[in-house]
Amino acid sequence: MPNIPIVETILNVNDQLAEQNRRIFDQAGVLALNVMASPGGGKTSTIGRIIDALRDEARIGVMDGDIVAIDLEGFAAQGIPVSLINTGGNCHLDANMVHSALPSMDLSALDLLIIENVGNLICPAAFKLGSHINVVIASVPEGADKPYKYPAMFRGADVLLLNKMDLAEYMEFDVAYFRHGVEVLNPGLTFFPISCRTGEGLGDLAAWLRLRLAEKAQARG
Amino acid sequence: MPNIPIVETILNVNDQLAEQNRRIFDQAGVLALNVMASPGGGKTSTIGRIIDALRDEARIGVMDGDIVAIDLEGFAAQGIPVSLINTGGNCHLDANMVHSALPSMDLSALDLLIIENVGNLICPAAFKLGSHINVVIASVPEGADKPYKYPAMFRGADVLLLNKMDLAEYMEFDVAYFRHGVEVLNPGLTFFPISCRTGEGLGDLAAWLRLRLAEKAQARG
Repeated sequence: MPNIPIVETILNVNDQLAEQNRRIFDQAGVLALNVMASPGGGKTSTIGRIIDALRDEARIGVMDGDIVAIDLEGFAAQGIPVSLINTGGNCHLDANMVHSALPSMDLSALDLLIIENVGNLICPAAFKLGSHINVVIASVPEGADKPYKYPAMFRGADVLLLNKMDLAEYMEFDVAYFRHGVEVLNPGLTFFPISCRTGEGLGDLAAWLRLRLAEKAQARG
Repeated sequence: MPNIPIVETILNVNDQLAEQNRRIFDQAGVLALNVMASPGGGKTSTIGRIIDALRDEARIGVMDGDIVAIDLEGFAAQGIPVSLINTGGNCHLDANMVHSALPSMDLSALDLLIIENVGNLICPAAFKLGSHINVVIASVPEGADKPYKYPAMFRGADVLLLNKMDLAEYMEFDVAYFRHGVEVLNPGLTFFPISCRTGEGLGDLAAWLRLRLAEKAQARG
């Protein structure tokens, strides 16, 4: 048999860059979130609510992979450090885009970096960024079948938010069917039903993130 | 100056295949729709409503780019010819995928072929399929800023549906802002506000499609 090199364990370029980003975040003691959702699923609203809940206890920055800065203007106006990642109209962020945006952020002045990915339930799932927590936001009007149709996204989540719960009373949304689909893909996944409009569930989400921030602070000693 | 060949007008491979698909549709006298939307925007529901409205006057088939067949089972149960396009988890349909699925459909037995694209507001915009009409479905809960954030999708639309109008009373949706964003990208675009739940606007959409089918029938003489 010829001497065939084993390449399986060699990480692809994106994964290598993601690991590099992770080391940079860890050295700076920053907890990094990768927030993913469909277009209009509520990424920006949720990030706004997290900022409202945690800004007095954590220094928060936001990177945004949207092609326009309209979402960031609101955060910047609140004094939150923001950075627009130039995706060139791409359908996802990748580790290199995040890496390129890092110099625009003073990580030493942050505890929490929230990276808002491009609105897409497919492509972002395939590209690690180096973040610590993949936050996937589904929303009630999208329907309960989404885990079955976009399995990679739900499989890769570290925490799942189901947003727009305030609309659940106006439509059929089979929570059991939704949760079953998630459970098959990602058993035991942390799950928060929320409404950015009414505030439902956001206290629980903030408490969970507070614990993650405390763990991060403990890790950096 | 050296003799540099002009390659600008040479279509890329996808466009060439799309033209080929178009010729096949035209030869069969079939009107082909490419239905695009966010995950959960209402592609399947809208297709179902179009079938309900037109099935007595047109022979309709459905091709679906989802990775699971759950949407197609309902149509098949109604006697609609269906074909699941294997996207291999890809984030969009392309002309080759549609081309490969054509042998599974008897086009000579159809007047209208509805191709349901993958749920994604970005990638499908870049790949022509050979369809005659690009149907883009936005939905109220996604928010009125979508044309500003996903310009290619709205620019490439031949008809725009704004679905889930029944939810407009429960949330702020600035229709003027939405329509302004669309008008800048795609002046004069045909627009139908609809609700697959209440039936609002679906009669107008069906009437519009009926005209397109009549044009197609006239063209084949």
